[in-house]
Amino acid sequence: MANTDSVRVRVFSLNCWGIRYLSKHCPQRYAMIGDMLCKEEYDLVLLQEVWSEKDYLSLKKKLCCIHPHSHYFKSGVIGSGLAIFSKHRIHDTFLYRYSLNGYPYMAHHGDWFGGKAVGMAVLNIGKLTANVYVTHLHAEYCRDKDSYLPHRVVQAWELQQFVRHTSAGADVVILGGDLNMHPQDLGNRLLRAYTGLRDSYVETAKFDGCEDGITLIADNPFISKKELVPFENGIRIDYILFKGSSKLDIHCDSMSTTKGSVPGHPFPYSDHEALTSELRLDPHTPAETGSDGQSKDQDCAAGKGAELVDILTEARTEVKVGLHCAERMRYTATRTGVMGLALLILELAIAAVPWLALGAEQPFPRTSFYLLAALCFAILLTTFLLYIFYTMELKSLQGAEDQMRLAIGSLQEKLRGFPLAQPHNAQRKPPEGDEPTAFDPEE
Amino acid sequence: MANTDSVRVRVFSLNCWGIRYLSKHCPQRYAMIGDMLCKEEYDLVLLQEVWSEKDYLSLKKKLCCIHPHSHYFKSGVIGSGLAIFSKHRIHDTFLYRYSLNGYPYMAHHGDWFGGKAVGMAVLNIGKLTANVYVTHLHAEYCRDKDSYLPHRVVQAWELQQFVRHTSAGADVVILGGDLNMHPQDLGNRLLRAYTGLRDSYVETAKFDGCEDGITLIADNPFISKKELVPFENGIRIDYILFKGSSKLDIHCDSMSTTKGSVPGHPFPYSDHEALTSELRLDPHTPAETGSDGQSKDQDCAAGKGAELVDILTEARTEVKVGLHCAERMRYTATRTGVMGLALLILELAIAAVPWLALGAEQPFPRTSFYLLAALCFAILLTTFLLYIFYTMELKSLQGAEDQMRLAIGSLQEKLRGFPLAQPHNAQRKPPEGDEPTAFDPEE
Repeated sequence: MANTDSVRVRVFSLNCWGIRYLSKHCPQRYAMIGDMLCKEEYDLVLLQEVWSEKDYLSLKKKLCCIHPHSHYFKSGVIGSGLAIFSKHRIHDTFLYRYSLNGYPYMAHHGDWFGGKAVGMAVLNIGKLTANVYVTHLHAEYCRDKDSYLPHRVVQAWELQQFVRHTSAGADVVILGGDLNMHPQDLGNRLLRAYTGLRDSYVETAKFDGCEDGITLIADNPFISKKELVPFENGIRIDYILFKGSSKLDIHCDSMSTTKGSVPGHPFPYSDHEALTSELRLDPHTPAETGSDGQSKDQDCAAGKGAELVDILTEARTEVKVGLHCAERMRYTATRTGVMGLALLILELAIAAVPWLALGAEQPFPRTSFYLLAALCFAILLTTFLLYIFYTMELKSLQGAEDQMRLAIGSLQEKLRGFPLAQPHNAQRKPPEGDEPTAFDPEE
Repeated sequence: MANTDSVRVRVFSLNCWGIRYLSKHCPQRYAMIGDMLCKEEYDLVLLQEVWSEKDYLSLKKKLCCIHPHSHYFKSGVIGSGLAIFSKHRIHDTFLYRYSLNGYPYMAHHGDWFGGKAVGMAVLNIGKLTANVYVTHLHAEYCRDKDSYLPHRVVQAWELQQFVRHTSAGADVVILGGDLNMHPQDLGNRLLRAYTGLRDSYVETAKFDGCEDGITLIADNPFISKKELVPFENGIRIDYILFKGSSKLDIHCDSMSTTKGSVPGHPFPYSDHEALTSELRLDPHTPAETGSDGQSKDQDCAAGKGAELVDILTEARTEVKVGLHCAERMRYTATRTGVMGLALLILELAIAAVPWLALGAEQPFPRTSFYLLAALCFAILLTTFLLYIFYTMELKSLQGAEDQMRLAIGSLQEKLRGFPLAQPHNAQRKPPEGDEPTAFDPEE
């Protein structure tokens, strides 16, 4: 039940698919999005794939009365594509660029150029401090053979680190965006379990939208049905997540998604469906946080800790697969580079030492000589650049794995500190002078 | 005065200058550092420029009894070079890689390859939560004409953002490292003013070390005196900073630096001097935070806010200089690329259309043709890569400038919300429903 102090916050999230000159009907769709936002007057609008700053600026102009406060996060070559519009004043912003984000030579996928990141805005809703995050993770192009999975898992890992460490002072945390992960995908479980963020779709009291909350649907005219196989109806990869704090409870009263078409328009807003959540923030008095059910809380926390260790172990395995892959790629680049160098030396040797030419009159036509030399140099340069890139990828993967190992160790130590979940153990002394009982995944 | 609940923490920081095979006496110096750390038994050891993981691992092995907990942060191609050793359990770690960090083609400076970053470790000292940061910023190679200044200012900006946003839940914050900035340099003022971090050297009750606390001294045999000009004695660029929280006060009881030589050894630990701070953490009871002097606090906060706006404006100007520079560099790269393309087209045209050769019998010797074509391709590839790099640099600089502009606006709004600093204004109503009086740079 809502109490009289309740604050209502309406949050909107949409991946705009805003690649100028490439995305279909881009200007018309931005105009539609702008009109709708003007009409709906959401408290917070979280947009992804606003790849052109010009589009952001025209939206900003259009929305200046409803959303006087906004921020566009810049990253990568053409990104980050993330934008926040708010009714409430934005006091502060911060951007975290993911350390891994695909490969520059996979230009047709484009993720690397987008500089995927998570943007944070700190704003005051009434007297409450809200940390609002908007993010977009690396796309999944082939689920069966997803070569970007380790990168996406590391992104999810860094996302949960960023949210967890930056939100300690916030009364309410809201995260929206295109996570490019199904609800039960590893990265998604990692994010939710570690941060305690709750999923609007799962938590909502009332839902109006596509079946199963899917946001990439087969009925959308911009989507090729082939891309969705084997999920014929569609998939859910866009989310609005939230959590409260010791000072307030947060509830999702209703949630909705668009359903492919927009009444009165020939096409939808984007290739993704838009999400809207109506959140209710209930500040609670200190008296409400009683000490009853402490033992139950302990059991619950211990259970969560154990679950987290399992998820982290799974994530670590995935990162190790990525490490193995990156090592192999670096090895291939090195080997190719060495072969290029050998070829160059051989060529120079043949040209310089006549008896190597096996008695031929004109051992090496000049044209072939220069062409071959140019080829060798091209190979050397390319493999050198690739070697540098793969070394950086390896460092990031190793770094994430080290951090995960340390986190698992720390969680396991905390779990060992738990009294067993039987009543007769409730008065056991905790070992090693740590905080006695409370398991807090936030710590 | 120390009270009975006081906790003492001894912190050590050193830039190890650990480039294998290049830094002088590297193995011997690591051995000396390890022996000294074993003997001194500091609570926290913050190291920079540990470029090789092997060196970290051998230190870890040596220090396992004194410092059972440690972490090595990985970043860039050979970095990040940052390591933490601790007596207290490290629960969690997080790394923030600076978005700007020099240029890859300035390989002789090497900073880009080091992947400069700030590493955070969350640990419990008794019942207190401590956030410990270790960092290393881009070096300054020429103070008069410092082309890296905008990068270092953005690094300082990101460092303060990272510390401020991640430390809300901490009881104590400690930051150590090589900031590559003099005490009154813009980035240093920005960092201290925004985060509220205090400088051990300035705050210490007792100091033993080099004059003015300098950490890059002329007497160090690894330092060329020419590099220090016009600061003949040396400069102070390494720091241990700290701050408490609402739960505890923190004081620096003593601080010391090494003085170039190490007794009993032929050379010092590094080209930088090592720093040691002895911090005293005094948990205080809620009663101590009285409401007296509120008006004085307001004046002080308003003064700090105004100072911050000045510093931020200065930083924004510096970032704009960087923007101008990066734009010029990108323009040069584009122009060179276009010229390379024009040359290639001209060459192809001459080869393809005989009358362009102005009647010459053999207009284009084949060898020259291929050599010129190879040159054109090399120009095109290089300028394309540079264009990509400068575009990313521009995005980061623009992003930082946007964030600074927003922060200045927010601070100015808060300052307008302050009652004037005269007693008769103390009961004035604050405008616009914001938090009435307290100016909190941390918010």
